[in-house]
Amino acid sequence: MKYPPVHYHTYLGLDPLLTAQHRKSLEYGKPAHDEMLFIIVHQTYELWFKQILFELDAVLKIFAQNEIAETDMGFACARLERIVSILKLVIGQVDVLETMTPLDFLDFRDMLYPASGFQSFQWRLIETKLGLRTGDRLAYNQAPFFKSLTEEQQKLMLDVLDEPSLFDSLDKWLARTPFLQSKDYNFWDSYKKAVQTMFNDDIETVRGNPRLTEEDKKKNIEGLQNTLKSFDALFDETLFEKLRAEGQFRLSYKAWQAALLIQVYRDQPILQGPFRIIRALLDIDESMTTWRYRHALMAMRMLGQKIGTGGSSGHKYLAEATAKHKVFGDFFNLTTFFIPRSQIPPLPKAIADKMSFHY
Amino acid sequence: MKYPPVHYHTYLGLDPLLTAQHRKSLEYGKPAHDEMLFIIVHQTYELWFKQILFELDAVLKIFAQNEIAETDMGFACARLERIVSILKLVIGQVDVLETMTPLDFLDFRDMLYPASGFQSFQWRLIETKLGLRTGDRLAYNQAPFFKSLTEEQQKLMLDVLDEPSLFDSLDKWLARTPFLQSKDYNFWDSYKKAVQTMFNDDIETVRGNPRLTEEDKKKNIEGLQNTLKSFDALFDETLFEKLRAEGQFRLSYKAWQAALLIQVYRDQPILQGPFRIIRALLDIDESMTTWRYRHALMAMRMLGQKIGTGGSSGHKYLAEATAKHKVFGDFFNLTTFFIPRSQIPPLPKAIADKMSFHY
Amino acid sequence: MKYPPVHYHTYLGLDPLLTAQHRKSLEYGKPAHDEMLFIIVHQTYELWFKQILFELDAVLKIFAQNEIAETDMGFACARLERIVSILKLVIGQVDVLETMTPLDFLDFRDMLYPASGFQSFQWRLIETKLGLRTGDRLAYNQAPFFKSLTEEQQKLMLDVLDEPSLFDSLDKWLARTPFLQSKDYNFWDSYKKAVQTMFNDDIETVRGNPRLTEEDKKKNIEGLQNTLKSFDALFDETLFEKLRAEGQFRLSYKAWQAALLIQVYRDQPILQGPFRIIRALLDIDESMTTWRYRHALMAMRMLGQKIGTGGSSGHKYLAEATAKHKVFGDFFNLTTFFIPRSQIPPLPKAIADKMSFHY
Amino acid sequence: MKYPPVHYHTYLGLDPLLTAQHRKSLEYGKPAHDEMLFIIVHQTYELWFKQILFELDAVLKIFAQNEIAETDMGFACARLERIVSILKLVIGQVDVLETMTPLDFLDFRDMLYPASGFQSFQWRLIETKLGLRTGDRLAYNQAPFFKSLTEEQQKLMLDVLDEPSLFDSLDKWLARTPFLQSKDYNFWDSYKKAVQTMFNDDIETVRGNPRLTEEDKKKNIEGLQNTLKSFDALFDETLFEKLRAEGQFRLSYKAWQAALLIQVYRDQPILQGPFRIIRALLDIDESMTTWRYRHALMAMRMLGQKIGTGGSSGHKYLAEATAKHKVFGDFFNLTTFFIPRSQIPPLPKAIADKMSFHY
Repeated sequence: MKYPPVHYHTYLGLDPLLTAQHRKSLEYGKPAHDEMLFIIVHQTYELWFKQILFELDAVLKIFAQNEIAETDMGFACARLERIVSILKLVIGQVDVLETMTPLDFLDFRDMLYPASGFQSFQWRLIETKLGLRTGDRLAYNQAPFFKSLTEEQQKLMLDVLDEPSLFDSLDKWLARTPFLQSKDYNFWDSYKKAVQTMFNDDIETVRGNPRLTEEDKKKNIEGLQNTLKSFDALFDETLFEKLRAEGQFRLSYKAWQAALLIQVYRDQPILQGPFRIIRALLDIDESMTTWRYRHALMAMRMLGQKIGTGGSSGHKYLAEATAKHKVFGDFFNLTTFFIPRSQIPPLPKAIADKMSFHY
Repeated sequence: MKYPPVHYHTYLGLDPLLTAQHRKSLEYGKPAHDEMLFIIVHQTYELWFKQILFELDAVLKIFAQNEIAETDMGFACARLERIVSILKLVIGQVDVLETMTPLDFLDFRDMLYPASGFQSFQWRLIETKLGLRTGDRLAYNQAPFFKSLTEEQQKLMLDVLDEPSLFDSLDKWLARTPFLQSKDYNFWDSYKKAVQTMFNDDIETVRGNPRLTEEDKKKNIEGLQNTLKSFDALFDETLFEKLRAEGQFRLSYKAWQAALLIQVYRDQPILQGPFRIIRALLDIDESMTTWRYRHALMAMRMLGQKIGTGGSSGHKYLAEATAKHKVFGDFFNLTTFFIPRSQIPPLPKAIADKMSFHY
Repeated sequence: MKYPPVHYHTYLGLDPLLTAQHRKSLEYGKPAHDEMLFIIVHQTYELWFKQILFELDAVLKIFAQNEIAETDMGFACARLERIVSILKLVIGQVDVLETMTPLDFLDFRDMLYPASGFQSFQWRLIETKLGLRTGDRLAYNQAPFFKSLTEEQQKLMLDVLDEPSLFDSLDKWLARTPFLQSKDYNFWDSYKKAVQTMFNDDIETVRGNPRLTEEDKKKNIEGLQNTLKSFDALFDETLFEKLRAEGQFRLSYKAWQAALLIQVYRDQPILQGPFRIIRALLDIDESMTTWRYRHALMAMRMLGQKIGTGGSSGHKYLAEATAKHKVFGDFFNLTTFFIPRSQIPPLPKAIADKMSFHY
Repeated sequence: MKYPPVHYHTYLGLDPLLTAQHRKSLEYGKPAHDEMLFIIVHQTYELWFKQILFELDAVLKIFAQNEIAETDMGFACARLERIVSILKLVIGQVDVLETMTPLDFLDFRDMLYPASGFQSFQWRLIETKLGLRTGDRLAYNQAPFFKSLTEEQQKLMLDVLDEPSLFDSLDKWLARTPFLQSKDYNFWDSYKKAVQTMFNDDIETVRGNPRLTEEDKKKNIEGLQNTLKSFDALFDETLFEKLRAEGQFRLSYKAWQAALLIQVYRDQPILQGPFRIIRALLDIDESMTTWRYRHALMAMRMLGQKIGTGGSSGHKYLAEATAKHKVFGDFFNLTTFFIPRSQIPPLPKAIADKMSFHY
């Protein structure tokens, strides 16, 4: 009524969409049945990647702001959780692709050379927009990747690399977190004290344990002291920055503190949103890793392993990229420094009040 | 080397593919974020439908033959099982679509009127090629559906309706099954005898059961006799044809017999393939039914229910279509006439021999 | 160190767990391979049901309070979302169960009579604790269900029926929502005005549309007026209570208003949690419905349909229960009364302020 | 009627089952909500492992025979495919377990020390029965594993290690495959010739390609010659046995040949079953690998990474075991030696006849 009538077929652009499947094997007069599946699987991947980029851009826009309205948190969170949902779906597509057997693949594999999933520009964009830096990419395939891009794509990729990634914006947003330090409260001191108390209590418990031999006591106490020492990376900013320079951490010191605050006090109303944001980012990283891994396994199944040749095979590349291309590894590492909830110091009432609603 | 080099981007037609998303809400100057998801979800649906049609056409071609080579069974089976795998995937897409909330949908719903998933021509083609007859479609939406098609689509649909569907070819293939009757063996007689023996034994058991009162005995025996009587539909061809005319069965009498033979002697080497074919068709029917049902639920969630108006709503249509649009319902019903394996008469050695390999 | 060492095997009670599979077919000397699968599938169902009940009890405890701390929202929400996650998993178990064919089932089906999944006490407890009332259960199976319970189970069920269900507590919690009405603000009036303005504008648009014939205009305007009239159920408390008495609604009038407020202003910080709660409840209802439906389909596949007998079969019961046993149907219906975001009146600044943080 | 009535609750042993959850945190007076989930997830894992072992034992029994009836192929295949279906389900359980956050885990983690999923005896049994040899296990955890078993479990494990694994029986079954060599036909020679022809043709194509520089030609031809040379491992039994002794292959030479025959002539009626068996084993290996990998990721998320300590962490162990504990790696490697279908020599009619039915 208000708008001109719309038809499903034209609205969805089904003409360009459903005529975009061109089997090379057909072109060369040797039609291979499974090439159609191969094309459709990758086309649906790319459509989903477009959707992921669309959601990611919306989130990037929010986090690029110097101040983020609390009313935006639900929206940002929903976008990231949708990305997780999409990634879980596309992982499931591997099951469909694997209904193609290696022998079926051989029917047209040579015709596609050197096309490869590594050339997916959109996947690389997703990685880059999330925060994967050029230097973090597996060196081996880096050069070919840039060379394989069209000029237009190269230009676009460089632009994206120039803009702050989600990691960058997130770091700044975290670093801006209030509550870390105020006149009467210092989160870091309070957490440090709790850590030390916990370990000292543990050491005392060992010392007084009549069931343990002296040797066992000594060993246990050494273990506890070593673990306590590992917290130095947390509380000693100089050491943190040294390890950060070595690549052990990527988040800034302040952002790291804030991430810990959010995790341990996540039930405070004002931290519930940020906690969900961090969780969604962990889910995204983990799902992308799983996606790469499933493809590594599938590549091995499809192509086997060249024996006696030294070349890095596709599946090995993927298996390594799997570990290396994680962006939010810091959130995984953060867990190392959690202490049990019973040991976490309660927030001063004045701070807790500020973190809540008042109506 | 042998073939000109191919690039991922052009090979997959990513230019037409990734530029085919046109949000109406953008066109009208009121960009609605979730319209992109709505488009992408339906586009991936349609790509998968194209793949299903592609597999289905390959199977139709095999089953259209007057004699089907045993070497084709593995291929036909793999095609149908792939369709099952795709259907399970697209059912999972509902989870992604439901990350859109009803309020988000309202932002652009009016702009799409009267476009609707009911207009998916490919889905209708799948149904028709499987064997859904025009008369079996829910009457309500039949007229609008044809009207909503372009002339070209109408022509194509009429052509498809003219060709034998998978159901039709399958019926003929089943009816051709050897082994049903030979000089020394009549499957139907042998099965009938087994059924009668089983029920008569059951009746005797009841009669001799000292724990039962006379009344209970009478009731139980009546129940057994009624069930035995329901087998008349099986063994009495005239009754079968009468019930078939009423719509209780769709398969021809011979095909029905063959389907039963395949089910109960499925372990015989020559029947293992046909058994898998039947199972895959059951899986396809069940998965399409589940897909419709999930969409009925989702429609209800998205649109709610008009209260006080009598119009048939989308979700009600789907819920009814869910039950009515099953094509291979006969295979579901067949189960009613199974008897426990211990009661199934062993095959005569001569028949079993013919069903096996000899090398 | 602090605690005595624990072993995986004893900790998990694997001895009682892994010796609790007793195949009747083995007991009767006719071992049926697939009975083991049948047992394990149902045992894992029951373990997951125990987990769902455990989560549900934690949520019930929170919502039973007269005032719910904002710090509890994240926890409550996580519990409900975990239930959704479990339900999605157990729906997937149907795929595993369906690797059993009807013929395999026949090998031991008679030995289990009259045991049935309908006797799952825990599933009934879940339904009841969510808020399914005895009167809402499909009448047919109600009596047998109670009779089939042990005395202890009957007593427990009656106790649960006496306590407030999640629906009951939720209704009260919603009805307590502040912001519905204050000195300077009345949500209901403001929403009503927006609805009327929207429809009146729509009617004017139709009237002034030169592309429409007078007849079309008349028809369209009547349609719009009817839809507007359907909002009377919303704004006229007397009518609402009348329809509620007839079973059209179940929520109290105040709770219904609050649910609408939460939905349309869900981005406000204080409403983000409640919005997630409502969404999780919709997901739970939808997932339980899907679970029932998949079982209805499976039952039909396993058992077929008795032909010519009138008895209500298992799969029909399930298909009906599917629709009838929904608890939070009001949240589905609520959607009917949403208006597009562009038409929703902005909150007065004073109200928006109260819904946000101040630090 | 025939059998005494059965009740769902007692039949499924719900009393022992649903009372086997003992939270340590409750025992120690510090109830941790999420410990229940932790227990239930692992209990359902173990129930499914029991089911997998049950299916596996049925398959082992079939393959332990010196001659396997063709009528057993469908059954064996169904068992293995069911295992795949179960493994896909339990991989999905990781999603549910991950609704527990690291902080929630900390609430009771110390209380469970040193219990660990590595102690799952059933999972080890599955690996061993499939064919994982003690020497193939990651050395690091081997000793503790045996030590952590009860005497009874150790005895059982040693017995299982003494019996032929599925890998062992499968190797023998494959090696017995007829058709590899007969008076008039030698599969190996025929395949070897096809391989050589293909590569020689490829080399000629390169030589005659006017688009290539001499340098490119040389490089390409060298590449082709190297690949051709890698086939020596296939056709030269002495070299094969040498590489096998080094661990490159595990299957016997004859079994390896048969596996290749089955793959490339899989459409022959008699090979359709064996082809499905091999495919199911690939699926099992791949799914178990994915399961291990998802747990490695989850462990990293739950526990983080100790920094500065050298100890092998759980997630590293899993990541390595992931690759190392594959049993049917040969079937993955086999793919390396496939040639395109168009190059595969057609079977002599006499051989094809023997592979088919005659009725």
